[in-house]
Amino acid sequence: ILYEPIKVLDHGFVRIVDYMGDDGAVVQAARVSYGKGTKKVNQDQGLINYLMRHRHTTPFEMCDIKLHIKLPIFVARQWIRHRTASVNEYSARYSILDKEFYIPEPQHLAAQSEVNNQGRGNVLVGAEAEHVLTLLKQDSVQAYSHYQDMLNLDENGQILDENRSGLARELARMELPVNYYTQWYWKINLHNLMHFLSLRADSHAQYEIRVYAEAMLDIMRRWVPLTYHAFTEYRQQGA
Amino acid sequence: ILYEPIKVLDHGFVRIVDYMGDDGAVVQAARVSYGKGTKKVNQDQGLINYLMRHRHTTPFEMCDIKLHIKLPIFVARQWIRHRTASVNEYSARYSILDKEFYIPEPQHLAAQSEVNNQGRGNVLVGAEAEHVLTLLKQDSVQAYSHYQDMLNLDENGQILDENRSGLARELARMELPVNYYTQWYWKINLHNLMHFLSLRADSHAQYEIRVYAEAMLDIMRRWVPLTYHAFTEYRQQGA
Ligand SMILES: Cc1cc2nc3c(=O)[nH]c(=O)nc-3n(C[C@H](O)[C@H](O)[C@H](O)COP(=O)(O)OP(=O)(O)OC[C@H]3O[C@@H](n4cnc5c(N)ncnc54)[C@H](O)[C@@H]3O)c2cc1C
Ligand SMILES: Cc1cc2nc3c(=O)[nH]c(=O)nc-3n(C[C@H](O)[C@H](O)[C@H](O)COP(=O)(O)OP(=O)(O)OC[C@H]3O[C@@H](n4cnc5c(N)ncnc54)[C@H](O)[C@@H]3O)c2cc1C
Repeated sequence: ILYEPIKVLDHGFVRIVDYMGDDGAVVQAARVSYGKGTKKVNQDQGLINYLMRHRHTTPFEMCDIKLHIKLPIFVARQWIRHRTASVNEYSARYSILDKEFYIPEPQHLAAQSEVNNQGRGNVLVGAEAEHVLTLLKQDSVQAYSHYQDMLNLDENGQILDENRSGLARELARMELPVNYYTQWYWKINLHNLMHFLSLRADSHAQYEIRVYAEAMLDIMRRWVPLTYHAFTEYRQQGA
Repeated sequence: ILYEPIKVLDHGFVRIVDYMGDDGAVVQAARVSYGKGTKKVNQDQGLINYLMRHRHTTPFEMCDIKLHIKLPIFVARQWIRHRTASVNEYSARYSILDKEFYIPEPQHLAAQSEVNNQGRGNVLVGAEAEHVLTLLKQDSVQAYSHYQDMLNLDENGQILDENRSGLARELARMELPVNYYTQWYWKINLHNLMHFLSLRADSHAQYEIRVYAEAMLDIMRRWVPLTYHAFTEYRQQGA
C-alpha cells in the first residue's frame, strides 16, 4: 500500500521508489544525544514532539525518501526551486516526450484574483470557460503534432519522410507548452521534506503544486506516522 | 564596461548587477591561511594558480557575483539544476510575460545526432529548415495571442471584453512554450560559478546554455582576471 502511486491532476502521480529510516531512525538518532530511554510508542511520540517543538532537526535528516513524480513542467519549475534535494529528470534532449498535457478541471479554472495579484479569484463559467478550455486543448494537441513533425515522425512515431533528417530533440521540444508533463526521481531527507511541505501544502502555493504536496503529506503519514503527527501539530505553519 | 549587458541568443542577456570581492579577496583569504607574503601581481597569480591546482577552494568562496539574466525557459530549466546559487525569478503568477521567444539562427538549426542521442548532427537546410522555422515562429506567435485572449487582453494589453473575467495568470501561462524568455537575478560565489562554467561552457552542454556560459566566462575574465587565467589553465576541464 505504501508503494502504490497516488494519482495527482489528470496525468500525474507521486510514488515511493525507496526510503531509508522511519520514525524509529529519528528516535534512535535522538537517543544518541539523549541517552537510552524506554521505547513505548507514546514515549517515542513524546520524544519526536519534543524534537519538533525545539527545532532539533538533525535526527529527521537521518531519514531519506526517493519519489518518482510525474508533473507538468510549470509545476516542476516551482518545485525545483527547493535546492535541498537530489533530482534525476527525464531528458528531452535524449528522449521524446509523451503526448500528455495538463488541462484543469472546470472547477479549477479560476479567474485572476482582484485582491491578490499572485492568486486566483472566482471560477470561470459558461462561454468564457469553454473558450479557454478549447484554446488550451487545441493548442496542446497542435503543439505535439508539430513537435512530431519537426522530429520527422508521424503520429505513430514512425519516420515521416526519408528525405528529411528531423530536428534535434533538444530543439524540437521548444514547441511544447509548459502544461506538458515531465517526470523525475526526487530524493530528499525528512527534514527538508517538511520544509518543502510547509511551503507547498500551504494556501499561498498554486493549486497545481499544492495537490502534489498534499499527496506527499499522505505518504508521510503512512511512512512516519509519529513525525507526521508532530509536524501537523507543531510545525506545518511557518516552519 | 564591466556592467554592460552582454547579448546572448536573440533576446537574452547577461548583466552584472553587483559583486563582492575580486582576485584581491581570494588572495587575502588565502593569506589568512598562509601568512602574509609580498603582493606583486605575478606572485598573486602564482598563489591563485597554487590554490586552483591544489583544490584549495574556500578562498574563491569569498567572492560573490549577482547577475541579471534573460534566457529561454528551456535553458532556465537546465540552469536551475545548479543548486549552489540564489535565484529570484520573474513570476508568471504575478506578472504578464513579455512577447519574446527564441528562434534559432538557421546555422544552429541542427538535426538529431545519429551517433550521440543527446546531441546535434548536421544543420538542417532547404525546405526542411524553412518548414521548422515557420512552425516555431507561427506557433510562438499564436501561443502569445491565445495567452492574451485567455487573460482577456487585446494586442495592446487593454481589456478585451468587459463581460469576461480573464483567466488567472498562473494558469494562462500554461499556453506558452518553453522557448519563451524568462528573467532572473542569480547570485553565486566564485567557486560555485567555476563549477557551473566547467559543466556548461563545455561541448556536452546544449548550445543554447553554452553561449550563456561563454558570456559569463567573459565576465569572469574582466572581473577576476587572475582567477580566470588559473581556471582556464588548470581547472576548466573536469572540475
Ligand atoms: C551535459 C549535461 C547533461 C545533463 N543531463 C541531465 C539529464 O539528462 N537528467 C538530469 O536530471 N540532469 C542532467 N544534467 C544535470 C546534472 O545532473 C546536474 O544536476 C547539474 O549539472 C548540476 O550539477 P551539480 O549538482 O554538481 O551542481 P550544484 O547543484 O550547483 O551542486 C554543486 C555541488 O554541490 C554538492 N551538492 C549540492 N546540493 C547537494 C545535495 N542536495 N546533496 C548532495 N550534494 C549536493 C555536490 O557536490 C555538487 O556537485 C545534465 C548536466 C549536464 C552538464
Ligand atoms: C507561495 C510561493 C511563492 C513564490 N514566489 C516566487 C517568485 O515570485 N519568484 C521566485 O523567484 N521565487 C518564488 N518562490 C520560491 C521561493 O523563493 C523559494 O525559492 C522556494 O520556496 C524554495 O525555498 P527554500 O530556498 O527555503 O528551499 P531550499 O532550496 O530547499 O532550501 C532550504 C533551506 O536551505 C538553505 N539554503 C539552501 N541553499 C542555499 C544557498 N545557496 N544559500 C543560502 N541558503 C541556502 C536556506 O536556509 C533554505 O531556506 C515562491 C515560493 C512560494 C512557496
